[in-house]
Amino acid sequence: MSSPIALAFSGGLDTSFCVPYLKEETGRDVWTVTVDTGGFSADELEEVEARSKTLGAAGHTTVDARADLWERALSYLVKGNVLRGGVYPLCVGPERVVQAQALVGAAREIGATAVAHGSTGAGNDQVRFDTALRLLAGQTASGRGGAASDGTGGAEIEVMAPIRTLGLTREASAAYLAERGVHVDPATTDYSVNRGLWGTTIGGKETHRTDGVLPESAWPDTASPDAAPPAGREVAVQFERGVPVALDGEAMAPVALVEALGRIGAEHGVGRGVHVGDTILGIKGRVAFEAPAALVLIDAHRELEKVVLTKLQLVQKAALGDLYGALMHEGLYFDPVMRDLEAFLDSSQRRVSGVATVALRQGAHRVRGVSSPHSLFDTGVATYGEETALWDGRDAEGFTRIYGLQSLLAAAATSDE
Amino acid sequence: MSSPIALAFSGGLDTSFCVPYLKEETGRDVWTVTVDTGGFSADELEEVEARSKTLGAAGHTTVDARADLWERALSYLVKGNVLRGGVYPLCVGPERVVQAQALVGAAREIGATAVAHGSTGAGNDQVRFDTALRLLAGQTASGRGGAASDGTGGAEIEVMAPIRTLGLTREASAAYLAERGVHVDPATTDYSVNRGLWGTTIGGKETHRTDGVLPESAWPDTASPDAAPPAGREVAVQFERGVPVALDGEAMAPVALVEALGRIGAEHGVGRGVHVGDTILGIKGRVAFEAPAALVLIDAHRELEKVVLTKLQLVQKAALGDLYGALMHEGLYFDPVMRDLEAFLDSSQRRVSGVATVALRQGAHRVRGVSSPHSLFDTGVATYGEETALWDGRDAEGFTRIYGLQSLLAAAATSDE
Amino acid sequence: MSSPIALAFSGGLDTSFCVPYLKEETGRDVWTVTVDTGGFSADELEEVEARSKTLGAAGHTTVDARADLWERALSYLVKGNVLRGGVYPLCVGPERVVQAQALVGAAREIGATAVAHGSTGAGNDQVRFDTALRLLAGQTASGRGGAASDGTGGAEIEVMAPIRTLGLTREASAAYLAERGVHVDPATTDYSVNRGLWGTTIGGKETHRTDGVLPESAWPDTASPDAAPPAGREVAVQFERGVPVALDGEAMAPVALVEALGRIGAEHGVGRGVHVGDTILGIKGRVAFEAPAALVLIDAHRELEKVVLTKLQLVQKAALGDLYGALMHEGLYFDPVMRDLEAFLDSSQRRVSGVATVALRQGAHRVRGVSSPHSLFDTGVATYGEETALWDGRDAEGFTRIYGLQSLLAAAATSDE
Amino acid sequence: MSSPIALAFSGGLDTSFCVPYLKEETGRDVWTVTVDTGGFSADELEEVEARSKTLGAAGHTTVDARADLWERALSYLVKGNVLRGGVYPLCVGPERVVQAQALVGAAREIGATAVAHGSTGAGNDQVRFDTALRLLAGQTASGRGGAASDGTGGAEIEVMAPIRTLGLTREASAAYLAERGVHVDPATTDYSVNRGLWGTTIGGKETHRTDGVLPESAWPDTASPDAAPPAGREVAVQFERGVPVALDGEAMAPVALVEALGRIGAEHGVGRGVHVGDTILGIKGRVAFEAPAALVLIDAHRELEKVVLTKLQLVQKAALGDLYGALMHEGLYFDPVMRDLEAFLDSSQRRVSGVATVALRQGAHRVRGVSSPHSLFDTGVATYGEETALWDGRDAEGFTRIYGLQSLLAAAATSDE
Repeated sequence: MSSPIALAFSGGLDTSFCVPYLKEETGRDVWTVTVDTGGFSADELEEVEARSKTLGAAGHTTVDARADLWERALSYLVKGNVLRGGVYPLCVGPERVVQAQALVGAAREIGATAVAHGSTGAGNDQVRFDTALRLLAGQTASGRGGAASDGTGGAEIEVMAPIRTLGLTREASAAYLAERGVHVDPATTDYSVNRGLWGTTIGGKETHRTDGVLPESAWPDTASPDAAPPAGREVAVQFERGVPVALDGEAMAPVALVEALGRIGAEHGVGRGVHVGDTILGIKGRVAFEAPAALVLIDAHRELEKVVLTKLQLVQKAALGDLYGALMHEGLYFDPVMRDLEAFLDSSQRRVSGVATVALRQGAHRVRGVSSPHSLFDTGVATYGEETALWDGRDAEGFTRIYGLQSLLAAAATSDE
Repeated sequence: MSSPIALAFSGGLDTSFCVPYLKEETGRDVWTVTVDTGGFSADELEEVEARSKTLGAAGHTTVDARADLWERALSYLVKGNVLRGGVYPLCVGPERVVQAQALVGAAREIGATAVAHGSTGAGNDQVRFDTALRLLAGQTASGRGGAASDGTGGAEIEVMAPIRTLGLTREASAAYLAERGVHVDPATTDYSVNRGLWGTTIGGKETHRTDGVLPESAWPDTASPDAAPPAGREVAVQFERGVPVALDGEAMAPVALVEALGRIGAEHGVGRGVHVGDTILGIKGRVAFEAPAALVLIDAHRELEKVVLTKLQLVQKAALGDLYGALMHEGLYFDPVMRDLEAFLDSSQRRVSGVATVALRQGAHRVRGVSSPHSLFDTGVATYGEETALWDGRDAEGFTRIYGLQSLLAAAATSDE
Repeated sequence: MSSPIALAFSGGLDTSFCVPYLKEETGRDVWTVTVDTGGFSADELEEVEARSKTLGAAGHTTVDARADLWERALSYLVKGNVLRGGVYPLCVGPERVVQAQALVGAAREIGATAVAHGSTGAGNDQVRFDTALRLLAGQTASGRGGAASDGTGGAEIEVMAPIRTLGLTREASAAYLAERGVHVDPATTDYSVNRGLWGTTIGGKETHRTDGVLPESAWPDTASPDAAPPAGREVAVQFERGVPVALDGEAMAPVALVEALGRIGAEHGVGRGVHVGDTILGIKGRVAFEAPAALVLIDAHRELEKVVLTKLQLVQKAALGDLYGALMHEGLYFDPVMRDLEAFLDSSQRRVSGVATVALRQGAHRVRGVSSPHSLFDTGVATYGEETALWDGRDAEGFTRIYGLQSLLAAAATSDE
Repeated sequence: MSSPIALAFSGGLDTSFCVPYLKEETGRDVWTVTVDTGGFSADELEEVEARSKTLGAAGHTTVDARADLWERALSYLVKGNVLRGGVYPLCVGPERVVQAQALVGAAREIGATAVAHGSTGAGNDQVRFDTALRLLAGQTASGRGGAASDGTGGAEIEVMAPIRTLGLTREASAAYLAERGVHVDPATTDYSVNRGLWGTTIGGKETHRTDGVLPESAWPDTASPDAAPPAGREVAVQFERGVPVALDGEAMAPVALVEALGRIGAEHGVGRGVHVGDTILGIKGRVAFEAPAALVLIDAHRELEKVVLTKLQLVQKAALGDLYGALMHEGLYFDPVMRDLEAFLDSSQRRVSGVATVALRQGAHRVRGVSSPHSLFDTGVATYGEETALWDGRDAEGFTRIYGLQSLLAAAATSDE
């Protein structure tokens, strides 16, 4: 069979193994697809393409998916103030969505009837890739992704995960490649690092214990908090309808703003964290991360919302934002409830415009204040704890008399027990 | 009528006014009751008692309600990881509950048929006091708290709020007292400060704007982060079933532990924050706070929970903890749903035992790690992203095939649209 | 002052009282406004207008707000499957929203600087009217609704509730009118009935006890179930994106469809119920109702949704629909969170098209089945409990191995306790 | 190996197949265990035991688990008012929990080192059995349930599901048995029926379509509504702390009460329904059911709660009851969050005592009224819509002024947009 296989390709050990392996096993061409979700420099993208050629790929495509990542996912993580477990900004999960979309898109362009990914059977990514790829690849009735007859767009595409199927160790993959003249160190570092637009995750050694503390050297990009400039600095983030549109008064597209804010935060050691989370498969996982832009943007946005949204909006947004993040994390981005939640979140942002000022200093960031033309905090009308024109003491007495009535009735009914 | 009035008394301007005012207006004795919820030194308590005598009170009672405050409320704020708006540890609301209970208890002891508080008509406290006092004072059928005939325990007790009724300004109160030879400066400071076991709130000037930043001098107890020891320090908090029981290995009762941890945190500038919240009456209020012990304990507890509770527990606890905090904030502590939520929270803490280590440095605190005998994070069984004995690649393939099925069916049904 | 007062006018005792009372007390003209939300026949609307003239109103406006009621509120009660306490379709609350809007609209047209309603101080309607009218009347800074200087559109309009202010009994109102030559029986019936498009509520006598049972004669419109045709009948309701568009194959506008279905249901004794609910003010209230169209439409819609929506959508919709209904009931229609919830509900209805068949017989209705082009219930793909092409036994084994993993780890960690 | 296998045995085709199959394949003894969760008559239990002997089982145990089923699960389904999708009382899921517990208990008693169940790979039951059995069987580190060395209590027990593993059709099972002289018709009826204490489910033919209607003959136990006594009857159910304790004034244990009420309901054609639900595996399933006792008890209990619980309790209970039912349905009974939810539910029932009267007539049931010593519906205090001693018109005016304040502020801030 002559139709090629489109392989999600990062240039790492696992996806490198897949190129010769799939080619030899199936006799089909393998086309590598690298999706840039913010984790690559231009040089790195070139190196990845070069390795693809060395491994014998029939072709290579690089897709810049950063703007797509923002539009489809990150913008809603800001609108929903999504921090898993109160701390982790969900750096990885959203990348898989746009990677799957770009992979299937490239597959249809080159007439591939199969897509492949290099996930093992141990983690979240296999679930995210499998569910996204099967759905985007049009698998329905058969459920087994039998290749369509003509490979045209819309036809079903098979999904392959050779590393999982083989249950390969990293050592075995490296040996397989070495036999074919390609040398990759199976254990180049103690840590596995995933870089992307929304942050960098770091796993290994100390994260395999719940009480391990990463050494300073393991943090790839952020300055050591102790060594960062003691004076710190402030940044002002302007939002329009929940979307950051300017940094320190300079208008920027979201991707550029996230990248610029990330660099500033990293200089001040801001954005580090460690989180223990629940994987889709049910075991616990601990991850360290650096995500200065995400943390600053979310905190700034959350504080801005506190002055423009009603209590009922804040309470519902908190619950639905958490849910949105959980489903994104768990590979359920394509469930239609996610579109419904996005409709809620979009609606809620109608008045979320204004500026938040955030102080960054030696690893810490604090929102210092916000201002908005739509503020409900209007001292012309009422100041908390002070006199107000909105009601008088007699009104307040009437309010309190009625407000607590049901608790009082319940207490009376209880005393009969 | 000779039965006395029991007055909640802090020694401040408003409650000082109430002593001569109530006495003169009603011809009844006024008995002052000061409830210590952690905000007073021994000297301050003596001063308060002395002022009561100066003002002409018939008697004075001081109640140490700190342990009660912990048991009834703060322990559940830890179990529920309650931080309003993600930041504010709810320093004030719980105090009103135990103050109301102590006031009604004292009233029954001295045979008072009325209780009074000094709240204005502008803020949350009038609502909290009114609802709590009416309920505890046994107001039911009449709803107007008509004094019971004999003043015995269990009889109805009237609730008075003279400052609200009169709509008095602070200047007017001060003038009234000055006429009676008691001189209180109506504007001693720019900030109104509420100190208590769970933290100190600071309101005034800059908090009356959403973009105002408190000057360093306005923070009463915490060291300036910039001037705190650059080396920082670590603390280890041990929990048993969700309750902190030891600090750095030393067993302590909860109140003592909170106070000791508060002192350590304050030395390192830890625990400051600013929050914009929704008042019970519907307007927004902004408040600065210092709460080192509360913030460190809640973050330590939350991270410990991440390793011992299941995902379903964590998700439900987050929602119900937020609800518990909201109802506490809104003066609804006595609604029976709060007992139901406490039953849930208590049950959830069965395995929340272990130690969390927290680094404090120049205003920032970070949980560095946790350990627990009940950890679900068991590397003997499985390590995230690594090989596991719990399932193999074929199991994982089956799981992912079925896991995303409904999204896939929905996508197929949607494509027919 | 010459600018008129616009009075919400039903022709009943309370609003009849308000016409001469407001005229005499203020010396201003009173203009009556009757808003038809489905509760009036053409004859009744004429009688109401005639009574307005008799009472001395300066003018009268009738507004047909049925379509508006559907668009703004009832359509979302269907989309959200809103049944309070599992039974009550929220007949009354939504009417107050469109009545308030029509009243303020009429007031601006006639240059009125005040609006008035006849609510007492005892029930929900005063809260619904007050909050809606103040908001729509543009009351902001002053909070007291001082009349604007020129009465132009957009200016503030005062809100009056004379019955509540006076605390009048029905007997006193009747006597006041009798003195002015208008005779209204203060106790014409034992029951107070509120008719509207979404149903009729009945209160009085037996509903003032939790164990009282209404006599057959007290149900105004529905046939007695025992006496209804034993054969019953079926109806087929077609929905497009959550909105009913055809009845038994005949396309109809929503208002016409609701009215036609209501007549059919009433013939078969369908739609009766009794509900004990919580009022906005905190006391319990019991109400009987007849709402054949509402109950049939909601059940039909809910069953249709079960075959087209994903589990995640169904779970979230249930929670948010209940919330939407609660806030509507509690007079919070204008809180912006309601627009956010509507955005969610609208999004969720994208695939809610199809037909539901409902059997009506002697007071009972049952959804017999549904069909939809967007069904996820596809026996070509899989039949529950039968063989399926979507997975095999080995897949299922892998799924179950991983699915229950966390409970298993928790049990192991617990056994160490 | 000589240790026996304990097989969950219903006497049906699938579990009958397992006896000779497991014996022949493993060479081990097979011990059959039948768990009575309400679905068997005494005669049927004897027949099941006789068939076990015929099939060559080494022994047979019958466990009466009805009281256990009530205590562990059904009582919480009442306390939580659990009706899936508003209609289905969750008849089947809870049975699997107590069946798994009884099976593992019997296995430990007879020294079995393996348990087996007859589930296919297509439905919910395999998931419920697998997760429950693995957990109860002590599978932890190995995850593969390797048999423990000595078979003592507490040791790990292997879990087998031969029908799923083999992917057998019913015809193949029947043929296998026929070869061994045991004749079971693979298609005795068009419907598969699961009888139990909480109700009977019926699946087949018409339930494989979303618009199919079961013929009258397919309902096993309930009278045809049209043919039931036209006069109907009433029943009075008395609850103590949420648990039904008496029927028509006669004290009964819960199991006896459920069975008696089920018989009465069936005579009146009450309790039928059809539900489309989401299976654990993601596909939709449609099921018909007869559950008179469950439906009557839940509706009676829900209406009783409306008069004794506060609004906050009712809202939270509704949400958490639904969640409890969903997790039970999905085989997650053993997740510790279920114990936390049970603690909430138990706490909420403190005042849920009283009597509910329910009318049953020709397939319909209606709660006619309730009474409780702990009612919050106290007409001595206030009657909805009537005069009240709890507040006056001026109080109500103050309440409404403050109540809607935030919506008003938001509207003002929005108008600036």
